[in-house]
Amino acid sequence: MLIVGELINSSRKAIKPAVQEKDAKLIQDLALKQIEVGADYVDVNCGTQVFNEVETMQWLVETIQQACDAPLCIDSPSEKALAAGLAAAKGNGKQQMINSITAESERYNNIISLAQEYKPKLVALCMDDAGMPETTDDRIRVIDKLINNLTKDGIKEEQIYLDPLVKPVSTGDEAGLEVMDTLRYIRRSYPGVHTICGLSNISFGLPNRKVLNRVFLIQTMTAGMDGYILDPLDKEMMGAVYASRALLGQDEYCVNYLGAHRKGLYK
Amino acid sequence: MLIVGELINSSRKAIKPAVQEKDAKLIQDLALKQIEVGADYVDVNCGTQVFNEVETMQWLVETIQQACDAPLCIDSPSEKALAAGLAAAKGNGKQQMINSITAESERYNNIISLAQEYKPKLVALCMDDAGMPETTDDRIRVIDKLINNLTKDGIKEEQIYLDPLVKPVSTGDEAGLEVMDTLRYIRRSYPGVHTICGLSNISFGLPNRKVLNRVFLIQTMTAGMDGYILDPLDKEMMGAVYASRALLGQDEYCVNYLGAHRKGLYK
Repeated sequence: MLIVGELINSSRKAIKPAVQEKDAKLIQDLALKQIEVGADYVDVNCGTQVFNEVETMQWLVETIQQACDAPLCIDSPSEKALAAGLAAAKGNGKQQMINSITAESERYNNIISLAQEYKPKLVALCMDDAGMPETTDDRIRVIDKLINNLTKDGIKEEQIYLDPLVKPVSTGDEAGLEVMDTLRYIRRSYPGVHTICGLSNISFGLPNRKVLNRVFLIQTMTAGMDGYILDPLDKEMMGAVYASRALLGQDEYCVNYLGAHRKGLYK
Repeated sequence: MLIVGELINSSRKAIKPAVQEKDAKLIQDLALKQIEVGADYVDVNCGTQVFNEVETMQWLVETIQQACDAPLCIDSPSEKALAAGLAAAKGNGKQQMINSITAESERYNNIISLAQEYKPKLVALCMDDAGMPETTDDRIRVIDKLINNLTKDGIKEEQIYLDPLVKPVSTGDEAGLEVMDTLRYIRRSYPGVHTICGLSNISFGLPNRKVLNRVFLIQTMTAGMDGYILDPLDKEMMGAVYASRALLGQDEYCVNYLGAHRKGLYK
């Protein structure tokens, strides 16, 4: 199970000014805080800085690494920003993560050499030049292509975190089930490959989104998802994580559940 | 999906005196309230009244039926109390439920004739003369025996609500997984048979039990459970029910989720 703390993202209201004004303290505190409450990786996304994303990514990574040596998830569709982030993070001896590669020809070709050079964990979005898959069969076709190409290009199955791409259930009753079917296919066909997703898309357009997001985490964990990009400061979400792991036999003697309870990390 | 509201149970502190003092108003209000917030059946359990369970069951059923015609889950290990409850409920034209029969020879033989006479929904606990099953294989053996005997004795698969018997995860890391494996076996082998459980056993001996109970509901729904005995006034539990159904494709256009949101039935 791998949790990527999503909070250092310049599209968030609280972060955008901190990034623009280079408020190192705020960024560092947020990185430390996420690790402290249970994140394994700290996401770094400054995609809103369209005119200086590369320099901003470099600054963010250097800034975070002055405060801690947590592994980072360098998050951008741009290979230049990913390259800058990976280069800046190189010194800390951890295996970083990049988010993301896809089966789109141009993006794949741009990013695969970075993955070969730095050997990071690699989020692979389930989309190709035809766009987002419409059906489970489409997804499976893209997944087969992605995994075959990645392993042919020297990426180990264990490095790959497939993101099945979650669509809102408000746009189709089957949206959740399609993800679950996809997870079962990946577990069966590629047991070494990991899976990951963000949660908020599932609830787009509906009220009480946090309830839906939390339930979708529990459902997808039940079907075998083992990575999430989420807000680790959301104590109810973390309650779902700790309780799910305990009940799925992933937490011997419920030690982590009990420890998190004592530290007040969830509710 | 079938929800049995569990609150009219004389082992609960608030209910015991109401039952002993025959406080009809309190009982009737609680029946109405549970139906209003989404229970399909109202459980009636007065097992603590060891010296007058039969008369008390009859009074409870008559009292509830003066206020509403909701179908009832007559809940007792005693065939005499079940018989009294079923007889008293006979007039309302609904299919009642009884909780429970088992594969224990004496209990099976005592209760099967009631099931044949009244044709209720029938909670069948997964235990036999050897006691509670220890492993998934044991469970499967008991389940096969129970379903074969019940259908041979004229009970339709659709009437049967198998309760796999939930053990606390605090006594064994595999307790939740065993239930999930059992659910998958039942869905595959007896697609017409329903499944049901109470939730609180899973969290026995651990802190923050409500979180664990809620997560276990979502996990077991994901694996195909379609009945629960629970507190329908617990708005967080009902949030898990409504959100799970929406995300599992069991709520066309999320109509029930949206309706429950408007009525404030969950959070």
